[in-house]
Amino acid sequence: MAPDAVEVIGAKRDRQELSDSQIDWVVDAYTRGAVADEQMAALAMAILLNGMSRREIGRWTTAMIASGERMDFSSLSRPTADKHSTGGVGDKITLPLAPLVAACGVAVPQLSGRGLGHTGGTLDKLESIPGWRASLSNDEMLSQLESVGAVVCAAGDGLAPADKKLYALRDVTGTVPAIPLIASSIMSKKIAEGTGALVLDVKVGTGAFMGTVDEARELATTMVALGQDAGVSTVALLTDMSTPLGLTAGNAVEVQESVDVLAGGGPADVVELTLALAREMLAGAGHDDVDPADRLADGSAMDAWRAMISAQGGDPSAPLPTARETHVVPAPSSGTLTRLDALAVGLAAWRLGAGRARKEDAVQAGAGVVWHARPGDVVTEGQPLFTLHTDEPERFDRALEVLEGGYAVGDGSAYTPSPLVIERVG
Amino acid sequence: MAPDAVEVIGAKRDRQELSDSQIDWVVDAYTRGAVADEQMAALAMAILLNGMSRREIGRWTTAMIASGERMDFSSLSRPTADKHSTGGVGDKITLPLAPLVAACGVAVPQLSGRGLGHTGGTLDKLESIPGWRASLSNDEMLSQLESVGAVVCAAGDGLAPADKKLYALRDVTGTVPAIPLIASSIMSKKIAEGTGALVLDVKVGTGAFMGTVDEARELATTMVALGQDAGVSTVALLTDMSTPLGLTAGNAVEVQESVDVLAGGGPADVVELTLALAREMLAGAGHDDVDPADRLADGSAMDAWRAMISAQGGDPSAPLPTARETHVVPAPSSGTLTRLDALAVGLAAWRLGAGRARKEDAVQAGAGVVWHARPGDVVTEGQPLFTLHTDEPERFDRALEVLEGGYAVGDGSAYTPSPLVIERVG
Repeated sequence: MAPDAVEVIGAKRDRQELSDSQIDWVVDAYTRGAVADEQMAALAMAILLNGMSRREIGRWTTAMIASGERMDFSSLSRPTADKHSTGGVGDKITLPLAPLVAACGVAVPQLSGRGLGHTGGTLDKLESIPGWRASLSNDEMLSQLESVGAVVCAAGDGLAPADKKLYALRDVTGTVPAIPLIASSIMSKKIAEGTGALVLDVKVGTGAFMGTVDEARELATTMVALGQDAGVSTVALLTDMSTPLGLTAGNAVEVQESVDVLAGGGPADVVELTLALAREMLAGAGHDDVDPADRLADGSAMDAWRAMISAQGGDPSAPLPTARETHVVPAPSSGTLTRLDALAVGLAAWRLGAGRARKEDAVQAGAGVVWHARPGDVVTEGQPLFTLHTDEPERFDRALEVLEGGYAVGDGSAYTPSPLVIERVG
Repeated sequence: MAPDAVEVIGAKRDRQELSDSQIDWVVDAYTRGAVADEQMAALAMAILLNGMSRREIGRWTTAMIASGERMDFSSLSRPTADKHSTGGVGDKITLPLAPLVAACGVAVPQLSGRGLGHTGGTLDKLESIPGWRASLSNDEMLSQLESVGAVVCAAGDGLAPADKKLYALRDVTGTVPAIPLIASSIMSKKIAEGTGALVLDVKVGTGAFMGTVDEARELATTMVALGQDAGVSTVALLTDMSTPLGLTAGNAVEVQESVDVLAGGGPADVVELTLALAREMLAGAGHDDVDPADRLADGSAMDAWRAMISAQGGDPSAPLPTARETHVVPAPSSGTLTRLDALAVGLAAWRLGAGRARKEDAVQAGAGVVWHARPGDVVTEGQPLFTLHTDEPERFDRALEVLEGGYAVGDGSAYTPSPLVIERVG
């Protein structure tokens, strides 16, 4: 007899381990609509509060993969490696990273999403480039991976449809922050995508989903095990997200910063994280004899970027859109910038129009926040500290309000920088 | 700003107390359909696993009462008292109790439900009486309370509609066994019903919802406090449900047993519990100078029964329906009946057709189980121990299967009877 939804919910409610057949049945039945949204919502809350064993998470992930198609890159002439970030403020790393790794001889099949809330989406950033399109067929993707070596595009509906449905449900039922469900959601898509190696960038801090190193380590350890069990060479870096990355948060402003990095410049932290992730991806794909720093220096990463953008209809030479209005926030006093809070900056960028509150909202290509100093930098009273960008000046007040308590200028003698890469798991 | 469903769910998920305004809003919004089933299901699971304070349960109950109409019996010439049982096997007590208390001068406005699962429903039992109808208008109910003093009828849709909707949701989402939700469900209906005094019969044991005295005491204490806070004189008795009540479980068979009690006979345990509950109801209504045993003995309780049945279209003199087929289970050996399991008997009666699996199913009036000995009685090998009744003989096998391990005949020297009334709360 097939399991019954109330029996499966009751087992997890009563702190029992779900059996393989219970997990297979409930994920499949939910995807088919035989288990109702209200039943899956109760189960998701029970999983959030009572947890899941490693075995249960693994089986749940496998069941979500089995709900849809799997991609296959074995026909490519080079190995594949992908990166996933759990989401942060100013996190444009995919943009310089994908062409850089491609320039080192490893193909990067990056299926990305759009942003929701205060962390930006990679596709939203790239769509600020005139002509660039996010949707590719599987054949177009494969052909571009062979010719250019890097693709950043929207995930099709065929990959892990169970996850798509469950994610939308978790979003409205307060069941997003459950490590078993976060881990299986991310890993089901990445494993179905068919990458050979995977590097996870697990963010920690105010601007990230995981507020503490312990939570981030648990999530990272869980995901690395899921990847290894599925035959994907997987490692994770825990990286700091108490301070936003680089000097920009938004869409076109982050593309410009990424191009600066590919041109050999850009903020030191963005360069550092891009190289650290590139080295892990190359190692995972068995190409660790190549130093990605050389490919940044010799311009080949920039060549790969231009080819990648062009292949998807974008004009890499066209000027990027700018916002109609800007507003400068000066430094309130002279001293050292001792704190710049990632969540405050992310919310400000969101309120300026760079992000969306609902899936169906549009984003402004030019909107965002640019800051002119990073923690540890000395600033002079009255010098520009932030420039806010938006098409709709009525948005400035609410952005300024959230930015207000998000930074501090003071005596720098006690300031100690925190490391960007906190820990490696794998 | 109105609270948001995800915020309310998140608060309970994170073990916070919900505020009055959060509770008022979420109960009202759920009743209106502004909070979706999947959101309430996640909240119900969070309440089940993280609990609620006494204040939260009180406010939740008040919000459910406020979702519908309240009845008012203040125009009656006599006080009112009601009884609620949490449900047990062979629990026909309402049938002799309501007319008995009416015969003592206290009106009993009993709004009842139908059975679902292995415990029978009072309305299902009464509907086995030819002509009897469960649906009354509020005016008919009031008029019968004045003239006869007792009404047992179906609760209208107007009382606590939030509870009706939430109960149906809990039933399919594994969120039934949550004490805050059970207590507020029962008490919202009883308080809205407008009774002046209330006695709760909280069952404990294998055939009951609460398996242990501790759980039953927690539920009883919670409900008594809710009643007192609402101005209803409320007490609870914890009573044994490891053994079924009386000698019958079903519909017409339980009506016959109730009539036996009203005629001055019937099983001792049914008489004992009926009198114990009657005394509590009379005390709660300020009529404790009357001894209900006298009203059983002098036939006035039987008169009230006949009047009550007639007022609702039933013929109290008509023969009760009987099942088309019977099957006798003989005692397997000589000795003492040392165990008779309430759950086994309840499931057997259910499988014979006395109960329903889904709300829309019909029940058989004649189906049920009759046992010919109670624990402690001496039996002789081969004498009839059970008689099973059903219209559909193909049901016997599955009923016998569940009854199999539900009783034991053995050496009676170690047998000690357990008390029927375990504890009084209030």
